[in-house]
Amino acid sequence: MTTKDQLLLYLKKNQGNWVSGELISNNLAVSRSAIWKHIRKLKEEGYVIESAPKKGYLLSKDSDPISADEISEGLCTKIFEKKNIIYLKETDSTNTRAKELAAQGAPEGTLVIAEKQTKGRGRRGRSWFSQPGGGIYCSLILRPIMQPGETPRITLMTAVVLAETLISLMKLKLRIKWPNDILINGKKLAGILTEISTEMDAVNYIVVGLGMNVNTLFENFPREIKKSATSILIETGNRVHRIKLIQEYLKLYEQYYDMFKKNNFEPIMNRWRALADIIGKQIRVDVIGKTHIGKVIDVDNDGVLILKDDQGRLQTIFSGDVTLARF
Amino acid sequence: MTTKDQLLLYLKKNQGNWVSGELISNNLAVSRSAIWKHIRKLKEEGYVIESAPKKGYLLSKDSDPISADEISEGLCTKIFEKKNIIYLKETDSTNTRAKELAAQGAPEGTLVIAEKQTKGRGRRGRSWFSQPGGGIYCSLILRPIMQPGETPRITLMTAVVLAETLISLMKLKLRIKWPNDILINGKKLAGILTEISTEMDAVNYIVVGLGMNVNTLFENFPREIKKSATSILIETGNRVHRIKLIQEYLKLYEQYYDMFKKNNFEPIMNRWRALADIIGKQIRVDVIGKTHIGKVIDVDNDGVLILKDDQGRLQTIFSGDVTLARF
Repeated sequence: MTTKDQLLLYLKKNQGNWVSGELISNNLAVSRSAIWKHIRKLKEEGYVIESAPKKGYLLSKDSDPISADEISEGLCTKIFEKKNIIYLKETDSTNTRAKELAAQGAPEGTLVIAEKQTKGRGRRGRSWFSQPGGGIYCSLILRPIMQPGETPRITLMTAVVLAETLISLMKLKLRIKWPNDILINGKKLAGILTEISTEMDAVNYIVVGLGMNVNTLFENFPREIKKSATSILIETGNRVHRIKLIQEYLKLYEQYYDMFKKNNFEPIMNRWRALADIIGKQIRVDVIGKTHIGKVIDVDNDGVLILKDDQGRLQTIFSGDVTLARF
Repeated sequence: MTTKDQLLLYLKKNQGNWVSGELISNNLAVSRSAIWKHIRKLKEEGYVIESAPKKGYLLSKDSDPISADEISEGLCTKIFEKKNIIYLKETDSTNTRAKELAAQGAPEGTLVIAEKQTKGRGRRGRSWFSQPGGGIYCSLILRPIMQPGETPRITLMTAVVLAETLISLMKLKLRIKWPNDILINGKKLAGILTEISTEMDAVNYIVVGLGMNVNTLFENFPREIKKSATSILIETGNRVHRIKLIQEYLKLYEQYYDMFKKNNFEPIMNRWRALADIIGKQIRVDVIGKTHIGKVIDVDNDGVLILKDDQGRLQTIFSGDVTLARF
């Protein structure tokens, strides 16, 4: 363990409390100036450390830096491992980075995670707001052996994994919005962007992007999404350690992905249906240049929405923006 | 028209015959040394021009250079146009180049064509042999509005377009081999590599790669494919002008693609079935780690092979290597 790691461990043990430079110096057997040098490095890595004469150093309770080290510490997943975690302070889009890496042969389980995205993307070229320190912006590379036509299942599965992560850690009351968003109180908390590279008969790779508003304050959202977006902090009043969220997400991801690879998709889809709570509901779906209104009969295993209109005709809808009808 | 273009036109009019430098000089009103300079440039571009004292210059009948100019000359397609033709003397793989361009926003109809590929690829990472001057190696970028699950249809359509191109120009007796090859006398003449980038519910772009052995001599094929590969020259004894082939391919591609976009896929698929001539045949399909033997019942609109085995059970096969059974 390096001196810097020892120092970090020491600060973590005392997180939220002041520890004097002298005490650290004695405990770790390093000079005061060495401590000062390492503290500066830790701050650069995103740790929130206060320092004051006579008091010493304090690792803030709100300190929530993301790094490959932090993510992999105590993580016991098989396909997600430290050497395949790529942390970036800033990037255009983690999905774009992940696609590049995948094209160059990056292995299944590679995780690209960024503190800030300058061109965060949602479905169909829509933008995704990102706030440094406030959210989780990451992309996973998967290489499943499957038919191209079955790839929508990965998005459906990811929505379930994300929902289960939030429920397991925070008992959040949420809803999956077809096809790929997580809502709390009708507002968007997280979105999933799946991008797939295939040949005619075989998947090459899949990049599963996640954008989630975690500790974003209401005032930090841009005006145009203030009404439609929310964060965990806004909904619960509590700040959440993003590392814990990411670790739980990866842990559950592996469990569900294992199930998926064993062709055991039915239980995942049933969970999706329960979390989406859309079947039997009267909805409006806006597709480019068209609006469908009707009752949801099912969302099938490939994510296709089956709608029954007023005349009793069945419509199959592959894509669109859903609004629950109000009467 | 530049002096170089005028010179080329003059040589083309007299292709196969000697024209004296003096005659050219008088006709185009340029100096002999200017002619010599332009001839050198044309040779660099791939034109085969002989020169001899007293005789002058001769544009060889076998001269068959590829360039954006040559391809677009007289081509009256709408989506394939000169400004979107990218010609490369050498590249790793035209599909790789086209994918990069597509990711950067290159428009539908962009054509990447190379004289030589250093890492030509076939399906599933297999390599594809390329010989400068001997073949056609090109990739088209398409941006159809369609469901990801329907993308195999593009490969099926491309096989039909390519087969029709060869039949229309040369009355070749060929067969489409499921899913994406063109065979003559049981040997591989051409292959199609479709690579698709999609989101969950919408296609982003499709790159359709084509590798075809045109004027390759038997001795130029590497030893390991001598038995399995062929070229138009080998089969017919005639050299073919590649430009004509490319132009016909693009012309027919646009016609079929228009049909496709009008949801008129059934006639294309019926033509595929006729050209594949596989329905009712007893075949063996080698899939990774498995072999299926049976009679072909159908290839459905999504390219899925439906096989009936000895016990009368139906198998649906998405991918594999087919061999016709011999009894």
